[in-house]
Amino acid sequence: MGFEWDDHTQITPTGEGAWSARLDGGWVVGGGVNGGYLLGIMGNAIAASLPAKPHPLSVSAYYLSASTPGEAAVSTRTLREGGSVATVATELRQGDAVRISALATYGDLTAMPESVETTAVEPALPPIEECVPGSMAPEEVQRMAPLTQRFDMRFDPACVGWALGEPSGNGHIQAWFRLVDGRDLDPITLLMVCDALPPVTFDLGRPGWAPTLELTVHVRGVPAPGWVKVSHRTRNVAHGMFEEDCEVWDSTGRLVAQSRQLAMLPRG
Amino acid sequence: MGFEWDDHTQITPTGEGAWSARLDGGWVVGGGVNGGYLLGIMGNAIAASLPAKPHPLSVSAYYLSASTPGEAAVSTRTLREGGSVATVATELRQGDAVRISALATYGDLTAMPESVETTAVEPALPPIEECVPGSMAPEEVQRMAPLTQRFDMRFDPACVGWALGEPSGNGHIQAWFRLVDGRDLDPITLLMVCDALPPVTFDLGRPGWAPTLELTVHVRGVPAPGWVKVSHRTRNVAHGMFEEDCEVWDSTGRLVAQSRQLAMLPRG
Repeated sequence: MGFEWDDHTQITPTGEGAWSARLDGGWVVGGGVNGGYLLGIMGNAIAASLPAKPHPLSVSAYYLSASTPGEAAVSTRTLREGGSVATVATELRQGDAVRISALATYGDLTAMPESVETTAVEPALPPIEECVPGSMAPEEVQRMAPLTQRFDMRFDPACVGWALGEPSGNGHIQAWFRLVDGRDLDPITLLMVCDALPPVTFDLGRPGWAPTLELTVHVRGVPAPGWVKVSHRTRNVAHGMFEEDCEVWDSTGRLVAQSRQLAMLPRG
Repeated sequence: MGFEWDDHTQITPTGEGAWSARLDGGWVVGGGVNGGYLLGIMGNAIAASLPAKPHPLSVSAYYLSASTPGEAAVSTRTLREGGSVATVATELRQGDAVRISALATYGDLTAMPESVETTAVEPALPPIEECVPGSMAPEEVQRMAPLTQRFDMRFDPACVGWALGEPSGNGHIQAWFRLVDGRDLDPITLLMVCDALPPVTFDLGRPGWAPTLELTVHVRGVPAPGWVKVSHRTRNVAHGMFEEDCEVWDSTGRLVAQSRQLAMLPRG
């Protein structure tokens, strides 16, 4: 039996640069289907269109309308392929509605120079068994977000006051993360991981769905097997919008993904 | 007489969603024309196509090939317009070559909620007159970058060791910034400001041109008149690539733009 991620992100070719996919209801959150999951599907289509460049280096997605579970069509158009990277424009549609338009540059991380110099500081998280399982999230959150059942998340107790009605106000959430069935992560699943945790606005005392306007993920390394640490942070809430910076660190202490999204504050 | 920015970024309509522009040689840097300047031109075309939504909120640009001074064509295609924001796909071409493909979401910052809560810390910079003018940059830099003559930049002495052959290795450059002729900044010029300073790799002892793969700018406020503070930082150099995070703070202490780019390390 396969892993649910592979089942849920399967794509079927329907023509030149065209695929169909089935958006699984298990990824619903708030008003639509999780944007990171949708990027995983689009990421698979791009990889299928570029056999020698399997890894997303950068993906920028603009969310135009909320997706619903069911059929979707993904198209890809190669803008440039040459040397070590290729750039592709891609869209995900349901019927006549464009849900997501994205640009992406792919390459092969295993063929690039190996050297890594990181001054960013790995998130300090207590041991997994001392963290708070996502399954303890308030019922309201779980009802709004079936997608939380796709994950095994263990939240840093220092950043989880929001779950007890006592948000810290710091704009910071961090957690251990893995897929619920233990499937290891890879460069394409990292696109999803960057949009998997609850919006950092929970920690500002503003629970609710925060619609993403734009999400860019930079995949900076191939993740090692095992748990990753995921950190979300915002430092500027302005004009009804906030940025959410995400970092994903793998089990060897490597910073394997950096992302930023611009999202709308939850209403109310 | 007008300001040179307005002259250099002028666009002329040539059809539905189509404009011509003339890339000025004064913006050359390293192997091409500065990517931020080009975003300014594309930003003008998008604004012209969306009269009620004058301000970029988010722009993500994928750089496909280096531009050269001279004629260029800009196209825009509205993907969605509704409510308070609109999303547009845009390309800049020279002849048959696509130079840049970008997605952008525009809105009207003056029509959005006014409240601002920022926990990010404004860059600490000495007074302008105690900082190091860009005109003191090494001759090699000025020869490679005529664009530095478009700006009045005053670098933080603590971050300018690279100009004396003594890079700090911290991956941090910051400066006071304005346009050389004193034209005030606006949301569209901020797209350029986020790519104006020398690459942060100068501070890592790796001078030279660092080709941008992807640049996303979030404009978070309308800048007040006067000087801005610009900060560039990198915290992860991996697989021959680095991210460059830029912040622009206006003269009232507002964080008005946040950007990140993924770029290739200079060779050699």
